[in-house]
Amino acid sequence: MILIRYTPDPELTIAASARISASPAPVTEQLEKLTPQKADQLVAQLISAGHLSPLEHASFTFSIEGISRVTSHQLVRHRLASYTQQSQRFISMKNLGFVTPPSIKGNPQLLAQFQQGVRSAFELYLKLQEAGIPAEDARYLLPSALETHIVMTMNARELISAAALRLCLKAQWEIIQLFEAIKAEVCKVAPRIGEELRPKCYKLGYCDEPKSCGLFPTLKDTIKPPKKG
Amino acid sequence: MILIRYTPDPELTIAASARISASPAPVTEQLEKLTPQKADQLVAQLISAGHLSPLEHASFTFSIEGISRVTSHQLVRHRLASYTQQSQRFISMKNLGFVTPPSIKGNPQLLAQFQQGVRSAFELYLKLQEAGIPAEDARYLLPSALETHIVMTMNARELISAAALRLCLKAQWEIIQLFEAIKAEVCKVAPRIGEELRPKCYKLGYCDEPKSCGLFPTLKDTIKPPKKG
Amino acid sequence: MILIRYTPDPELTIAASARISASPAPVTEQLEKLTPQKADQLVAQLISAGHLSPLEHASFTFSIEGISRVTSHQLVRHRLASYTQQSQRFISMKNLGFVTPPSIKGNPQLLAQFQQGVRSAFELYLKLQEAGIPAEDARYLLPSALETHIVMTMNARELISAAALRLCLKAQWEIIQLFEAIKAEVCKVAPRIGEELRPKCYKLGYCDEPKSCGLFPTLKDTIKPPKKG
Amino acid sequence: MILIRYTPDPELTIAASARISASPAPVTEQLEKLTPQKADQLVAQLISAGHLSPLEHASFTFSIEGISRVTSHQLVRHRLASYTQQSQRFISMKNLGFVTPPSIKGNPQLLAQFQQGVRSAFELYLKLQEAGIPAEDARYLLPSALETHIVMTMNARELISAAALRLCLKAQWEIIQLFEAIKAEVCKVAPRIGEELRPKCYKLGYCDEPKSCGLFPTLKDTIKPPKKG
Repeated sequence: MILIRYTPDPELTIAASARISASPAPVTEQLEKLTPQKADQLVAQLISAGHLSPLEHASFTFSIEGISRVTSHQLVRHRLASYTQQSQRFISMKNLGFVTPPSIKGNPQLLAQFQQGVRSAFELYLKLQEAGIPAEDARYLLPSALETHIVMTMNARELISAAALRLCLKAQWEIIQLFEAIKAEVCKVAPRIGEELRPKCYKLGYCDEPKSCGLFPTLKDTIKPPKKG
Repeated sequence: MILIRYTPDPELTIAASARISASPAPVTEQLEKLTPQKADQLVAQLISAGHLSPLEHASFTFSIEGISRVTSHQLVRHRLASYTQQSQRFISMKNLGFVTPPSIKGNPQLLAQFQQGVRSAFELYLKLQEAGIPAEDARYLLPSALETHIVMTMNARELISAAALRLCLKAQWEIIQLFEAIKAEVCKVAPRIGEELRPKCYKLGYCDEPKSCGLFPTLKDTIKPPKKG
Repeated sequence: MILIRYTPDPELTIAASARISASPAPVTEQLEKLTPQKADQLVAQLISAGHLSPLEHASFTFSIEGISRVTSHQLVRHRLASYTQQSQRFISMKNLGFVTPPSIKGNPQLLAQFQQGVRSAFELYLKLQEAGIPAEDARYLLPSALETHIVMTMNARELISAAALRLCLKAQWEIIQLFEAIKAEVCKVAPRIGEELRPKCYKLGYCDEPKSCGLFPTLKDTIKPPKKG
Repeated sequence: MILIRYTPDPELTIAASARISASPAPVTEQLEKLTPQKADQLVAQLISAGHLSPLEHASFTFSIEGISRVTSHQLVRHRLASYTQQSQRFISMKNLGFVTPPSIKGNPQLLAQFQQGVRSAFELYLKLQEAGIPAEDARYLLPSALETHIVMTMNARELISAAALRLCLKAQWEIIQLFEAIKAEVCKVAPRIGEELRPKCYKLGYCDEPKSCGLFPTLKDTIKPPKKG
């Protein structure tokens, strides 16, 4: 997981853009006047007040290498983002790379069976192609564990929104790991935004899942709704 | 593939909405004045002139049952639509349903190997769960051929745009079949829109793929670009 | 503000769609099994748990008649929706309809000046056209108070999201009135969803604006964030 | 109109991303292998073949200063983009800046009337505020000619798609000028993409409007549709 491109000065860009909504000066002037410290503070205020649209002016492009098809299928469900994925239609895979769940890794006997299962499927995939079946059809046999590469571009607003769901402990371990890696990369170039990549309960102030993981209590244990008039 | 819900009177709704852009009367009056024949004609004009935004006012919701995970992964890449998909995280599948490519069906020996491969993977999937592995991890073994159910809502504009790509003979056979079924369902309730679900070359008037399937010639064989001033 | 079209049985459609994610049965079976009472309950659970994507399967199309260009400009900023608006390019307006802010209505002297200002602008608009200026250019003179018609289609998820912002008392009075009218219409055909069209503080459990209107206290007055590990 | 930020190496980023769909190597390797010449060539092929999704990996952020509210209202209708606009709610404008249509500029007498009309409206706007009316209400009087600032972020794919509509001679002169300025800025940093910002007829090979401006003939004058089977 490597951040390959991003809008230069992401937090300054966001803060300067936000400022034009309540100022007569255009963004070019705002960019000159803002210090990094002030930009940091403004980005924090925007997020805290839920004024998130200026966060869309900073985009981040990631090279996501070696995730399973399980996780790529979950990932592309975030529609406010751009993806280019390695095709199993046009590439006949020569080398077997696959992802093993930790729950299986921890049991040597099951691990051996799992690896054997994946390898058998891959060998049959190659054999079908030798018999003239096109790669795009032979791949129907391939297990979801198989690795894929994907390029993803997401803006800061959608990163925060996706991380709110995918860093929740109710998400699956592989996509949690992916978003932890995304967070680590964003923190290097936009620390204030990176810090905001966290489970949704931090914004809500409570857990809205049926059962809490313990980080925050559920709503009914915290505050009472107001009486309706 | 069943159309379970749609905006009532889809073509009338689209035509009446389109009319307000060039008329002082609101859509409620337009709805009263339009005949089905006139609505049909207006929808055809909108599409022909590329004025597609009024087509967004009619939505269609499909129950897509028993497509492979290969195809569901392709389908959800159309981002201007809504999806709810059967989860492999929370459902431990009891019965094995899977999709077999026609190229494999046609060869009895390969078919037997394919079926055996899918069955072995599924049995190991069940076995891992008996040994305590959660369904969400055991599914890493499951082949892409396995069936899934998905509910999809798409408006008429996006249906035309998706069909333009997915009914092109360069698309894979399973998603072509899916969009042929979608077209058949739409034709029953909105025949003018249904007819417009067709490969992109019909709109372009030529084939923009590197090599034509024969339906339309490629651009360089048809018309010359104008000289630049 | 009239609801002219909507997905039939909106809450049943949403509830049945949501159920397929954790069930082996497709949505056609779910539709048969669900009672309206159970559907209502499921929709409430989805919203409470923030599982909002199934709410996209129900769409609502409104005829919004006679709002100002101030408000239409704000409205179309909600991008996950479809709009067809009366054009000032191709329609030369014959009759003057305009919106007057309540703060001006309450002062007879200012009201007279406001009305006179709008009328003068409109007369000059007509005069310019008589002198051969096209309507699309003469309209540069037209005040933002002038009425426009717009057809808007929005799904239930986006309606909830837009209402969360536009029913907040920090929004402007005209768009608050518009969303109150939208809520009243939705309540007639989908009461559970209609009830969820309300300011964002109801979901958050606190006010995230710099200063509260009094409905909910701000976050710092309610709950403390957890200690970081 | 100033391009204030963009994804570094936009065309290289797009070309390298596109390559992963048909190659086993991830984008990080593709970035190393591609020359600018090869990237340019690949981007041209993508556009020509209608494979546009990799073009979403390059974003461009513009400071659009001094356009009329007529044009900002048209601009924000492009929904696959991000906008932050100067608010007329929270800024009470002190200086009058406005846009004059060329058709009016060319006639001294009409120009004087137009300018007088705009000035009268602005003076009444100030007067109402002195009398205690909030800026957000007084602005109902402001003409659409008044200038606004807006920050816009759009990716290369959507820029091409928006320019196809807005550079068509059927669009209004002010938004044509805006997109000509956008094109000039994009050409400086991504010449291949910049060149693709042009009216839709260049892609179609014909004019799909009811009447052609002369650049391309309409479809019925060029090619015949194929016979249906």
